[in-house]
Amino acid sequence: MTRILFYLDDFDHGIWRSVFERAIPDVEFCSYPDWGTPDDGPAYAFVWYPPPGLLAQYPNIQAIFSLGAGVDHLTRDPDLPKGTPIIRMSDDGLKEGMREYVLMSVLMHHRDMIALITAQREKRWDRIFPKAADKVRVGMLGYGALGKTCAETLKPIGYQIAAWSRSAKPSGDDVEHFTGQEGLKPFLERSDIIVCLLPATRETDNLLNAERMNWLPTGAAIINAGRGNLIDIPALLALLDSGHLGGASLDVFPAEPTPEDSPLWDHPKVIMTPHVAAVTRPKTAARYVADNIKRIERGEPALNQLDLNSGY
Amino acid sequence: MTRILFYLDDFDHGIWRSVFERAIPDVEFCSYPDWGTPDDGPAYAFVWYPPPGLLAQYPNIQAIFSLGAGVDHLTRDPDLPKGTPIIRMSDDGLKEGMREYVLMSVLMHHRDMIALITAQREKRWDRIFPKAADKVRVGMLGYGALGKTCAETLKPIGYQIAAWSRSAKPSGDDVEHFTGQEGLKPFLERSDIIVCLLPATRETDNLLNAERMNWLPTGAAIINAGRGNLIDIPALLALLDSGHLGGASLDVFPAEPTPEDSPLWDHPKVIMTPHVAAVTRPKTAARYVADNIKRIERGEPALNQLDLNSGY
Repeated sequence: MTRILFYLDDFDHGIWRSVFERAIPDVEFCSYPDWGTPDDGPAYAFVWYPPPGLLAQYPNIQAIFSLGAGVDHLTRDPDLPKGTPIIRMSDDGLKEGMREYVLMSVLMHHRDMIALITAQREKRWDRIFPKAADKVRVGMLGYGALGKTCAETLKPIGYQIAAWSRSAKPSGDDVEHFTGQEGLKPFLERSDIIVCLLPATRETDNLLNAERMNWLPTGAAIINAGRGNLIDIPALLALLDSGHLGGASLDVFPAEPTPEDSPLWDHPKVIMTPHVAAVTRPKTAARYVADNIKRIERGEPALNQLDLNSGY
Repeated sequence: MTRILFYLDDFDHGIWRSVFERAIPDVEFCSYPDWGTPDDGPAYAFVWYPPPGLLAQYPNIQAIFSLGAGVDHLTRDPDLPKGTPIIRMSDDGLKEGMREYVLMSVLMHHRDMIALITAQREKRWDRIFPKAADKVRVGMLGYGALGKTCAETLKPIGYQIAAWSRSAKPSGDDVEHFTGQEGLKPFLERSDIIVCLLPATRETDNLLNAERMNWLPTGAAIINAGRGNLIDIPALLALLDSGHLGGASLDVFPAEPTPEDSPLWDHPKVIMTPHVAAVTRPKTAARYVADNIKRIERGEPALNQLDLNSGY
C-alpha cells in the first residue's frame, strides 16, 4: 500500500490523519516516527522542518510535499535526496489567510494605525485623515500565486498596484510590472507600502538592505509575510528611527521565535505577529496533496513542483 | 445670485471654496460669517455643527446640506427651520473611507489583533491561528447606503454576513436580514463581530446596553463607526473586563474629543480612533451638493433627503 510519511513537530497529528483518510483513503497515513521501512513500498513525504538527513533514509519516497509555501526547511538539508520532486503547498486556506493578512496590514498602514495606536496610548485625540486609496501606491515584492491573489484582493480598494518579480510576468492585469535587478530601484521608489512575499533563497538574503530601503519614499511602510531572511533588521530599525520609514508589519523573522531581547518587540513603529499570516489548513491541504499524488500516479506533471535551479 | 452658505469650524475653508467654484461656478460660495443678508436671494446651507439658531435667521435657505453622514448636529437645533429640506451627505469619499475602516476593523478582530498586539507588548511569541473567514459571522447593525457598501466589501473575504435594520430590506443579496425590535436578539446572538452604522436618534440611544450586549456570543467584538450614543460605554467596559466581549474598535464616542480621564484610552481590548473612519472629501462632496442643487432647481426630488419622522 502506498504511504504518506508525515512529519510535523509540536502539533497534533490526529486532525491530519482524519483529513487524509477522507481525502485519499487508499493511501496509508504514517505519523513520524512510525514511517515503517524503505522497502514497505512507494511513499510520499509530507513534511515541515524534517531533521536534516531523515528523508535520505527513505529512497522509496516518490515526491516530497512541503506543508507550507516555503521550502527553505527542505533545501537547507545537505542530504536532501537529489532528483526527488519537491512540491510546494498552495492550498486555498493558505491563500485566504495570506490575502486577509495582507489586506489588513495594507489598510492599517494606509489608515495610519501605527500613529493612531500611539496616540491612543498617549491619550491624544489626534485626528489624522487618511489619503484617498487611489493616491496610495502598493508594491508587491514577489508575484507568485500568493502575490497575485493578494493583488486581486487589494484592487477593489482602489490602490495603485505594482509588482516586482525576478522574471517577466504577463501584463494586462491593471498591475504595473517591474522585473529583475534593474527593476528593483524604480519599483521601490514608487511604492508607499511594500508587501514582501518572496521565498527564502540565497538571492533574497537581505534583499531589503539599508541602501534599497532608502530607495523607498519617506514615510513608506514595509509588510513582510514572506520569509525572515528578506530584511536587514538592524537597517530597518535605523530607518524607522530616523523617520525615513513610517512603519513595518512583520510576520516572519530571521529567527523564530524572535528572541526576547530583540528590539523589535517594543518598537512603536513595528507590528509583530508570530508567523500566523497564512497557515496551511488540514482539509484543503489534504485535498491538494491527494490531487497531486493522483496526478503523479497518472504520469502527469505535479502542480507547483520546485524549480531546483532557482531554489523555489 | 444663488449662494452656498458654508459653516465648518476648525478647518480651512480655502479648499472648499475652490472645489465649489469648480463644481458649480454660477453659485456664490459664502464662508461664515460672510453669509450676507437673508434678502440677498435664494441660498443653500452647507454646514457642520452650526450654532443652534443660526439657520433660522436665514429664511431664504432652500435646503440644508449636512457635511457628514450624520444629521444629529442639525436636529439638535430647537430652532431648525421647519419644512426646509435637510439632505444627508453621501459622497463617494465618505463611502470609500467607511468601507476601508470597517474592512480593516473586521479583519483586525477576525485575526485576533488585540490579543496579538498585547502579546507583542509582553514579548510573548504566542501563535494564535485565526478561524477560517467562512466560520466568522459578521453583523451589520444598520443597513443604509454605508452598511450596504461595507457588506459588499466584506463578502469576497468569505464572511457570513447578516444585517439588522428598523424596517424590512430587500433580500436576494447573500445577506441574512433581521428587522425591528424582535429581530435584534436573534441578530446579536448570531454575530461574532458587529459593525454599528446606525445614526444618532432618540431610538438608538444606548441601543447596545448591557442586556443586549450580553446577547452577543462570548468573545464577540463590537465596531462602532456610527454614532457615539449607540453604546452604553460603562456596560461595554464591564463586558470586556468580564471576558464576555473580546474587543471593541471605536471611532465615535459619547463626547468628542474623548475626555482624558476616560478609561477607554488605556483599555487593552479597545482600539480607539478619533472619528476618522470616514471623512467627507471636498472634491466628491462638492460634486454631490452641486448635483443635488441642480435637481432641486429642476423641480426634481433631492437625493438623500431626511425623513423627518424617523430623525435620519
